[in-house]
Amino acid sequence: MQPFSLYLPTRLVYGKDRIEELDGLTRGYGTRVLLVAGTGSARKSGLVDRVKAALAGRDIVELEGVVPNPRIDSVRAGAALCKEHNVDFIVAVGGGSVIDCSKAIAAAAVSDEEAWELVRHPDRIEKALPLFTVLTLAATGSEYDNSAVISNTATSEKLGMANDRLAPVASICDPSLTFSVPAYHTAAGIADIMSHTFEQYMVLEGNPVSDGFCETILRTCIEYGPKAVAEPDNEEARSALMLASSFGCNGMLALGRTPSPWPCHGIEHEISAFHDITHGVGLAIITPHWMRYSLTETTLARFVQYGVRVWGLDPEGDPMTVAKTAIDKTAEFFASIGLPSRLSETGVTDEHFEAMAEHVETCWWSLQGALRPIDRAGVLEILRASL
Amino acid sequence: MQPFSLYLPTRLVYGKDRIEELDGLTRGYGTRVLLVAGTGSARKSGLVDRVKAALAGRDIVELEGVVPNPRIDSVRAGAALCKEHNVDFIVAVGGGSVIDCSKAIAAAAVSDEEAWELVRHPDRIEKALPLFTVLTLAATGSEYDNSAVISNTATSEKLGMANDRLAPVASICDPSLTFSVPAYHTAAGIADIMSHTFEQYMVLEGNPVSDGFCETILRTCIEYGPKAVAEPDNEEARSALMLASSFGCNGMLALGRTPSPWPCHGIEHEISAFHDITHGVGLAIITPHWMRYSLTETTLARFVQYGVRVWGLDPEGDPMTVAKTAIDKTAEFFASIGLPSRLSETGVTDEHFEAMAEHVETCWWSLQGALRPIDRAGVLEILRASL
Repeated sequence: MQPFSLYLPTRLVYGKDRIEELDGLTRGYGTRVLLVAGTGSARKSGLVDRVKAALAGRDIVELEGVVPNPRIDSVRAGAALCKEHNVDFIVAVGGGSVIDCSKAIAAAAVSDEEAWELVRHPDRIEKALPLFTVLTLAATGSEYDNSAVISNTATSEKLGMANDRLAPVASICDPSLTFSVPAYHTAAGIADIMSHTFEQYMVLEGNPVSDGFCETILRTCIEYGPKAVAEPDNEEARSALMLASSFGCNGMLALGRTPSPWPCHGIEHEISAFHDITHGVGLAIITPHWMRYSLTETTLARFVQYGVRVWGLDPEGDPMTVAKTAIDKTAEFFASIGLPSRLSETGVTDEHFEAMAEHVETCWWSLQGALRPIDRAGVLEILRASL
Repeated sequence: MQPFSLYLPTRLVYGKDRIEELDGLTRGYGTRVLLVAGTGSARKSGLVDRVKAALAGRDIVELEGVVPNPRIDSVRAGAALCKEHNVDFIVAVGGGSVIDCSKAIAAAAVSDEEAWELVRHPDRIEKALPLFTVLTLAATGSEYDNSAVISNTATSEKLGMANDRLAPVASICDPSLTFSVPAYHTAAGIADIMSHTFEQYMVLEGNPVSDGFCETILRTCIEYGPKAVAEPDNEEARSALMLASSFGCNGMLALGRTPSPWPCHGIEHEISAFHDITHGVGLAIITPHWMRYSLTETTLARFVQYGVRVWGLDPEGDPMTVAKTAIDKTAEFFASIGLPSRLSETGVTDEHFEAMAEHVETCWWSLQGALRPIDRAGVLEILRASL
């Protein structure tokens, strides 16, 4: 077993109609609040008003319009509001983009460093404002982890940052708030959850506990994902997906295993930095091609384990056939919930492939530690196969 | 899905030779330490000296001799030491008994209430000294939860207490520290881990995520338990068991499911309150009989799920046969790792059965919410079947 540390200080508050508990949860954290929301749906649905009602008595300033693949500009705007209004804590109402943006704001609001410098050097974060979240999308797991991904359109960069001080104090997770998520974004969220899991599960050295946790998350997505896409107000399905999402990125799925460089995220972050496509969609397209690239005699056993335990394939079957079937089933699954199978369907061309491959190595981190090591040529191969 | 809150503020620090990190982990928590240990093995092995070396520069007072089924007298002694020496934080070196005792000390040391009153009314705990643990036994999961079980020999009571303030700040989990645990206590620890899981898994309403987590823990114990018993220094097996243990009691295995009254623990706590037998041994004996008591047409599906997913039984088989086979396999497994199958083998007689059954209802809590509801007559039936 590989050594690891696990630190999950966030209080998860799951269930219907628990938003009102924000009042008690935020007691003792001050009275001046920055409320961060996205581009409209949380406001139109009345959710923002419910959150404001739960925070009655506090002075609330609002930052609206945080977009998917949240921008450093929003972080700067939020931090400026916090400084101007002496904000005590932040409440993020939205999905992973709003929460990620709020994490970066929480750090930038109490730092003298320029916001993008903190994204580039999260080890410099020495404190952050307390953050509370109200989750509206099952996808990134940002509600229960210490990391964020921020985009800089000026430099075509999309970088991940992690620091324990960014973990929310508490996250309210009400699955019924996701009933209104359209089928396409529900499916993209499912792909995101599954990709987080693959990124950690697909390594050479397994661990019985975290392997089992990963297989659980994958089976849950495969069983309940199509139900949520078909019946948006299926509470059981929405609950299963939200719960699956919360364990995606906080270390629970990698306990005791070799660390993985998250290769699909490295590659997808490049695609969405250049093209601003939906993160989960990019992951769904890349993942099967990355799997095909990664399947070798050395990695075969891992794919067989995946096929047998997640897809119920015959453990006595020819290993290479089982592995290839598992990969095909993965691709078919993403297609079955309505996601595109090729980058070209999303408007991506091969124009920036060389720059992306270059970027992965220089701005992201080495993918040499991936299940099958991926160099610059490997990134290009996966991108071209995905086109 | 049932609503739930999950709060795991403890930092888990897993891996070989990480004890020295205690120095950094305890920085900022003061300089006066109460070091709590058990009845000798941690001292004989040199572990206590290693811990003291890691805490060099602090003023250390020691409480030794905490016994299994830790007593309120030890809690009182530890709390008195803390008050006398103005202790800033506590370091527990041992298994669940030492950690549980230390949790109760941490609360009693900073309270005006009598220690047993705090055990009886944990909601009255408003603060506690910071607690750090160095784990030496894979069993109770106390290293990663907010609860403790304390015995009062004067009243033949053994009560559980839970309060978020009791959660350790950090727990050092080095599987190699368990190489010296004898086979019998290794097996008792395995039974404890599995029982924690059964108590939460065996309810009428499942949840795909926490069901999968439970099945993972059970499969891990079944695969690696016998290896650890047969080869005490098998690092892979010891690591798997320690990791399985850490998720036993902190809510991770019950996410979104109907709460369970932990019936085997209610019954076993009575047995060990009267007879001071090893907790895990009592659980291993009772569990299969409780399962047989609980198997009805209503509960059948749950046992079939257990048999198919944990024991790999044929999902197409006759359901009642699958369920009974799963229960038989559970009993055979405990016997195979060297645990007794009957209470009489441990010196327990039926002398106090009536008092125990009475106690479960009055001092523990109702077992009416168990998979199959258990009344006083049911407790007696299970005890007699276990004799």
